[in-house]
Amino acid sequence: MSKLDNVLDTIDRNQPAALQRLTNLIAIRSVSTDPAYAEECRRAAEWLRTELSALGFESSIRQTPGHPLVVGHAKAAARDVPHVLFYGHYDVQPPDPVDLWEGDPFVAKVADRRITARGAADDKGQLMTFVEACRAWRDNGGYPCDISILFEGEEETGSPSLPGFLAEHGKDVAADLMLVCDTSMWDRTTPAITTMLRGLLLDEVVITGASRDLHSGLFGGAAANPIHVLARIVADLHDKDGRIQIPDFYAGVQELPADIAEQWRELDFDETQFLRDVGLSQPAGEKDRSVLEQIWARPTCDVNGMSGGYTGQGSKTVLPAQASAKFSFRLVGKQHPDAIRESFRAFVRARLPADCRAEFLPHGGSGALALPFGSEALRRARRALQAEWDKEPVLIGSGGSIPIVGIFKRDLKMDALMIGFGLDDDRIHSPNEKYELTSFHKGARSWARILAALAA
Amino acid sequence: MSKLDNVLDTIDRNQPAALQRLTNLIAIRSVSTDPAYAEECRRAAEWLRTELSALGFESSIRQTPGHPLVVGHAKAAARDVPHVLFYGHYDVQPPDPVDLWEGDPFVAKVADRRITARGAADDKGQLMTFVEACRAWRDNGGYPCDISILFEGEEETGSPSLPGFLAEHGKDVAADLMLVCDTSMWDRTTPAITTMLRGLLLDEVVITGASRDLHSGLFGGAAANPIHVLARIVADLHDKDGRIQIPDFYAGVQELPADIAEQWRELDFDETQFLRDVGLSQPAGEKDRSVLEQIWARPTCDVNGMSGGYTGQGSKTVLPAQASAKFSFRLVGKQHPDAIRESFRAFVRARLPADCRAEFLPHGGSGALALPFGSEALRRARRALQAEWDKEPVLIGSGGSIPIVGIFKRDLKMDALMIGFGLDDDRIHSPNEKYELTSFHKGARSWARILAALAA
Repeated sequence: MSKLDNVLDTIDRNQPAALQRLTNLIAIRSVSTDPAYAEECRRAAEWLRTELSALGFESSIRQTPGHPLVVGHAKAAARDVPHVLFYGHYDVQPPDPVDLWEGDPFVAKVADRRITARGAADDKGQLMTFVEACRAWRDNGGYPCDISILFEGEEETGSPSLPGFLAEHGKDVAADLMLVCDTSMWDRTTPAITTMLRGLLLDEVVITGASRDLHSGLFGGAAANPIHVLARIVADLHDKDGRIQIPDFYAGVQELPADIAEQWRELDFDETQFLRDVGLSQPAGEKDRSVLEQIWARPTCDVNGMSGGYTGQGSKTVLPAQASAKFSFRLVGKQHPDAIRESFRAFVRARLPADCRAEFLPHGGSGALALPFGSEALRRARRALQAEWDKEPVLIGSGGSIPIVGIFKRDLKMDALMIGFGLDDDRIHSPNEKYELTSFHKGARSWARILAALAA
Repeated sequence: MSKLDNVLDTIDRNQPAALQRLTNLIAIRSVSTDPAYAEECRRAAEWLRTELSALGFESSIRQTPGHPLVVGHAKAAARDVPHVLFYGHYDVQPPDPVDLWEGDPFVAKVADRRITARGAADDKGQLMTFVEACRAWRDNGGYPCDISILFEGEEETGSPSLPGFLAEHGKDVAADLMLVCDTSMWDRTTPAITTMLRGLLLDEVVITGASRDLHSGLFGGAAANPIHVLARIVADLHDKDGRIQIPDFYAGVQELPADIAEQWRELDFDETQFLRDVGLSQPAGEKDRSVLEQIWARPTCDVNGMSGGYTGQGSKTVLPAQASAKFSFRLVGKQHPDAIRESFRAFVRARLPADCRAEFLPHGGSGALALPFGSEALRRARRALQAEWDKEPVLIGSGGSIPIVGIFKRDLKMDALMIGFGLDDDRIHSPNEKYELTSFHKGARSWARILAALAA
C-alpha cells in the first residue's frame, strides 16, 4: 500500500471517532451574531486550538475586537513542499426559528446517513473534513505539505475583524495557496471546484434639478424632471440584446475557454426550473448566453433601488427636485472596478440635460476573482477529486462574492482553491441543517488526496 | 350720468364703509382645516347670509357634513336678463406660523394702501368686491342680472362637501354663467381673465417580475429587473424634442389662436426669472414653445414619484420583484382623460418583456376647461375690464386646476368667467397676507361694469 492508501484507510477506520468529534464541536453554541453567545464562540475557538495542538500544530488564539481567531502551523515531513493555508469558520447562524427543528439544534442527530444540527454543514462539518484529513496524515508519518490553518468566528457577520488582523499579522497566515471548504458539490455524485467569483462594484447616483419640489400644474411642461432624466440613463444602460452600453465596459472580459464551456453545457442544469422557482420563464439578460454563463461568467449592471418624488399612497402632483438610484455591477475577468466606476459616471454625466446635476455616492468595489484555468494547483486538485469521486470535477463559477477570498487576494495576493462537499439541500442557515455522512467521509478523503497531489 | 356711472360713484363713496365690512368679516377666524374653528366658520356663514339678506337676496344657510354653505338669490329689475352665479369661499388658511405676522392675523391692519390680514385677499377681500358691486347696484335701482351667490367654507380643504350638495341641490345654484373671483391680475395695472385650466389625469403603474426579491449575485444577468423595465417605459414617453410619444396623445389639442398667441408674446413675462426662482435656467419641455405656452396651453406627462428595490442607506444587492411609478398628465383642449388613460396603458403593456406584468391604479382624471375664445360673455367682460383699467385684459391660462370650476362644469355644465384682482405678491397662505386697496376698490367697480355688460 502507498502512503496515501494508508492515510485513506485511517480516515475510513476513524469515522466513528471523527463523527463524535464533530458532535462535540457542534454542541458548542457558537452563534456569532448574538452577543449573548460570545463565551460560546470563545469556547469553540479553544476547542479547535486544542485539536490542532493535539495534531502537532503550533497553535494559538488570536484576539480581535470581535470573536477570536485560531491560527495553527504544521511543517511537512519533507522540505521544499507547497505551503497551504486552510480557511474555515467555527461560528454559526442562529438556530431560529427553533420550533421548526426536529430536536435541539445543537445536539447532533445522526440518522439516515446524515448528521442534523446547526453548523453540521456550515461550516463545522466542512472544516472538520480538513482536520480529519490532517489527523490521518499525522498518523501516517506526517504532513505532505506545510500547513497553516485559520479558523475565524465572524464569517456569519461579514468578517469585520479579519481585514484588521491581516493588515497587522498577514505574514502569520501567508502561504502559497489558500484552501477553502465553504462551497458545495455540483450534485451528490459530482465534485466541484469554484474557480470564478464575480466582483462587485456599487455606486449611487443622485440627480438634482430645481432647487425645490415644484407643483406639476404650475411648472409641468417647463421644468426638468429628474426622474425622467434618471430613467433615460437607466434605459440607455442596456441595448435591446442586453449588452451594457457603458464605453469600454467589456474591456477585460474574457470568453469562456472551450473546454469549460463544453463542461457547463453538459451539466444537467435546468434553466427552466432555475427560473421557474422564482416565477420567471425566460432568461432576461444578454442574448445568446446560457443562464450559467449569464450568472457565473458575464458582467452585469443592475439598479438595486430607485426612488424620487412622492411614493406614498394615492397621488401628489409634484415635480420632484431629486431622484436617485443605487447601481451594482457584477464584474468578471480583469474588469477593473475603478475604471468602470469612472466610465459609468462619465456615461451618466454625458446624459445630464441643462439644469440637472449628478452626485455620486460610492459604496465600494472589488474585482472578480478567478483561479487561472491553467493553474497547476487546479490541475492537481482536479485529478485528486477525480480519483476520489470517480468523476471529473466541474469547474464552476459563483455569481455572488465570497468576501473572505477577496480579502486574502487583495491583502496577501493569495489564490484560493474553493472545494466543498455540501449539497444544495443541506438547508444551511435554515432549520434542520444537515450534512451527509458521505460528504463528511469522502470530503476528508478528498482533502487527504489533494494534499498529496499538491505535494507530488 | 348713466346708471352705471351712478353705481360706480356709489362704490367710490362707500369705500370706508366697505373696508369696515371687510374688516368685520376678517375678524371671524374661519379656519376650515382646524375643527377647533368650526364655530367661527359657522359665524362667517351667518355673517354673509345676513349681508345678502340686507341686500335683498333670498338667502339661506345650507348645512353639509362639513362647514355650511351660503346660498342667495336676487332677481334683476328687468326680465330676460342673464342669470349669473357668483362663487367665493369664506374659509381661510391657518395663520401659522403666527410669530411671523406683524400683528394679530385676524385684526385687519390698513396702511400704505393695503389691508393686511389672513383672508384679506384669499378669499374674503375678493368675494367682498362682488358683494360691494351688488350693494351699489341695489342702491341704484336694482340688479342688472339675475344673481345667485354661493359661498362655501371648505375651499381650503378641497371642497369635500360640494359635489354631494350639487348632486342633491344643483338646481338651486344653476345659472347661465359662473363668476369666480379667486384668481389674480396679470400685474398691478393689467387685468386678466383666466380662460384655460388644464385638466389632470393620474395613473399609477406597478411592474412585477420575479415572485420575490432576488439576490443580484445569484440571479443578476439572468432575471428581469422591473426597475429597468419601468425606466425604459418612462424614457420612451418623450422624444428628444419633448413630444409625448403615446399614440393619439395630441388628439384634441388645439394650437393657440393667433391673437391670443400674440397677446402672450407681448406680456412682460420673464421666462428667465420664472425659472431662476426655482434654480433652473432653461425651459425643459417641448421645443419651440414659450414657457407660457408650455405651462398654460400644452399637455404634459410627468412622473410624480417612482420607487423600487432598496432605497435606504448604503447598498443592498437585490434584484427587486417590483417597481412602481405615479404618472400625471396635464390635459388641454379636448383631450379626453379616459381615452388617454387607455392609450397610456396600452403603451406600457406594449413595452413589457416576458415575465413582467403591469398593474394600474387609477387616481382620477378630468379634462381641461376652456372658455371658448369666441364666447359672448367673455367678449363683454373684456370690454368691461378694459373700461375700468384702461388696458386690454389678458386672457391667461392656469397650469393647475381649480377644482370647483371643474365640478360645476361636470355637474351643471356651467362655464366660468374667472376674474380676480389679487396680485402675485399678496402672500396668500403665508404670513402677512395682504390685499391692495386698489384691488378692493377697482375690483368692485370691475364687477359693477361686468354685470352691466353681461346684461346689455
